[in-house]
Amino acid sequence: MALEVRAESSRIVDLDTPSVIVDLGCLERNIAEMADLAREAGVALRPHIKTHKTPEIARMQLAAGAIGVTCAKIGEAEALADAGLTDFFIAHPLVTVAKARRLAALARRPGVEIATIVDSTAGIAALSQVFAGEGDLLDVLVKVDTGLGRVGTPPGAPTVALARQITAALGLRFAGICAHEGFSYSLPDPAARDAATRAGVETLVATARDLAAAGLRCERVSVGSTPGARAALIVPGVTEVRPGNYVFYDAMQVGLGVVPTERSALTVLATVVSHSARDRAVLDAGSKTLTSDKGVHGMAGAANFGTILGKEGVVLHALSEEHGWLRLDPTGSDVAIGETLRILPIHSCPVANLAEELVVVRGEQIVDRWAVAAQGRVR
Amino acid sequence: MALEVRAESSRIVDLDTPSVIVDLGCLERNIAEMADLAREAGVALRPHIKTHKTPEIARMQLAAGAIGVTCAKIGEAEALADAGLTDFFIAHPLVTVAKARRLAALARRPGVEIATIVDSTAGIAALSQVFAGEGDLLDVLVKVDTGLGRVGTPPGAPTVALARQITAALGLRFAGICAHEGFSYSLPDPAARDAATRAGVETLVATARDLAAAGLRCERVSVGSTPGARAALIVPGVTEVRPGNYVFYDAMQVGLGVVPTERSALTVLATVVSHSARDRAVLDAGSKTLTSDKGVHGMAGAANFGTILGKEGVVLHALSEEHGWLRLDPTGSDVAIGETLRILPIHSCPVANLAEELVVVRGEQIVDRWAVAAQGRVR
Repeated sequence: MALEVRAESSRIVDLDTPSVIVDLGCLERNIAEMADLAREAGVALRPHIKTHKTPEIARMQLAAGAIGVTCAKIGEAEALADAGLTDFFIAHPLVTVAKARRLAALARRPGVEIATIVDSTAGIAALSQVFAGEGDLLDVLVKVDTGLGRVGTPPGAPTVALARQITAALGLRFAGICAHEGFSYSLPDPAARDAATRAGVETLVATARDLAAAGLRCERVSVGSTPGARAALIVPGVTEVRPGNYVFYDAMQVGLGVVPTERSALTVLATVVSHSARDRAVLDAGSKTLTSDKGVHGMAGAANFGTILGKEGVVLHALSEEHGWLRLDPTGSDVAIGETLRILPIHSCPVANLAEELVVVRGEQIVDRWAVAAQGRVR
Repeated sequence: MALEVRAESSRIVDLDTPSVIVDLGCLERNIAEMADLAREAGVALRPHIKTHKTPEIARMQLAAGAIGVTCAKIGEAEALADAGLTDFFIAHPLVTVAKARRLAALARRPGVEIATIVDSTAGIAALSQVFAGEGDLLDVLVKVDTGLGRVGTPPGAPTVALARQITAALGLRFAGICAHEGFSYSLPDPAARDAATRAGVETLVATARDLAAAGLRCERVSVGSTPGARAALIVPGVTEVRPGNYVFYDAMQVGLGVVPTERSALTVLATVVSHSARDRAVLDAGSKTLTSDKGVHGMAGAANFGTILGKEGVVLHALSEEHGWLRLDPTGSDVAIGETLRILPIHSCPVANLAEELVVVRGEQIVDRWAVAAQGRVR
């Protein structure tokens, strides 16, 4: 019955809720703009697909000029390879032989190119143990911690030492260094954010010079984050950027001043299902749709779980799994039971991961439906 | 390749990570105990399946004596009906004709019994519009707000007024009243929690008396929450309890003192993939596995995202989507790259919703794998 109703629908107003909606015109503009910025800077664009996990969007990124994609997990790359994609950078430390075997199986698929990262001797050993027996060398980048404090070896000498170990390891080829300027999310002031991003990226570029001085050719100097992308891609010495969220530009990006709200491509449609007091109402979308995840680097303290578009004074202040708690300004706009609202989520990446499908629209018209093919591929 | 590795595995140590593990002995004990408590109290048990979303576990609950299941969304009931379950209580306000049509389609399946809730005239109108044309009356309960402040009409006269509207509506039958004592999650002191739960439940029972005085028979007086279950089911006048989390008893329940850690049936297995400073390490499980959702009612301020079992001094203090951030006590236990850790999540319901499958174990032995059939059914 659900499918029947949905097959009949051609306009947003006909959608059952909650639904996750992607505005195609907005998506196209976001993809084209980032591709243009990278092209103008002479830097390769390898977008992180964790934001959308969707082959259709990855293909749009490649058609606009991206040289390949970045994935967090092998499972995401496997799902996208099933959909015909071929060039993957797995930007997560793989430290077990089981994971190295899966990576080798993926690399053996016809036409598939793979690179990955390490930040430890243990990681190099696990990859080498498997790839020593493979026909082709595995491209390995050293992940460098340029200030985020998550994964990554310190810049400078420790990175050079790991690069030497890669070069010496059977089955592996040292392909470069990479970093993620996730700290850019904690800096709402654009000038401070750009300065910190630039400083982080320059640290990475300096390490590339250290490697060159040690006789190690650093083919790829790869950086990336959406808030820091514009500042990062003009730093001399950078060869590759890996922004992810720019396809959707969620409320976190709007809150950071990266773009205005009208550049946000992904919204959630939900229905007001309860309004039992004057100052409160409840939506049929909760944390299983809108996510409680506000990102680790900056918005954790935000006083809401998304922006209700066109309804000032209506605050989405809490989420149960299937309920969105609305606080209404008694002097402001009201809502009615049965009314549908559009919500701009704080963090669109987990929203796509939770969505059964992305409903693709132009204006109010539904033009396509895309399965989130790499949904839930956490291994 | 992933499947091949997994087919070979028969012990936890062989699992790829992250994996979500359910201890079968623990699950059986939790299910049996709650069924016994309800039976001894002479109260029907209708567990909420939002915790597990898994037909195998629902069948264990029914075999232990549950009279049916509670679902949040129609889609969950549809998935469980596909797996052969038949008796559903949809405990979420359905206020659109589209949802009422899906409910009617489900109710028409052979052997299926349905009841749902309303807290508004608009909800009654939408259900009546569809069910007036159906052969069987739809059982409708009034959802009463006994203190949570989410959905539900106030107790007393407003509930009686809605019950009268149901009785007058074509296609509907007034079947009783229900409430959810979600506020029990905000009361860590067991005595205070039991007292508040009892007070909420007694408010509902008093409303049942108001209904009887108004000539409206209140067949079902349904309450439920795991922390408040023991206190609720012994209140005279209660006919039904709907706890959900008791099958798994997550870290939230342990933190509230409902059970000790050894009663927790669901854990996450993750691998240490980075350890680039003495005081920090990173797991390959982040918010896409362990969830950032700490529950709306109480644990939002918790300083961690789950308990690392057997590793005191190791704190899971932040989650990125694919990274668990560990803070290590420099004077305490260390971790090694490649080591697997077991994590007791704060909120197991969203963890099951994110899991590709539940790996079922007895001790260290894998005995089964269950698909989370109603995963992501948010409509």
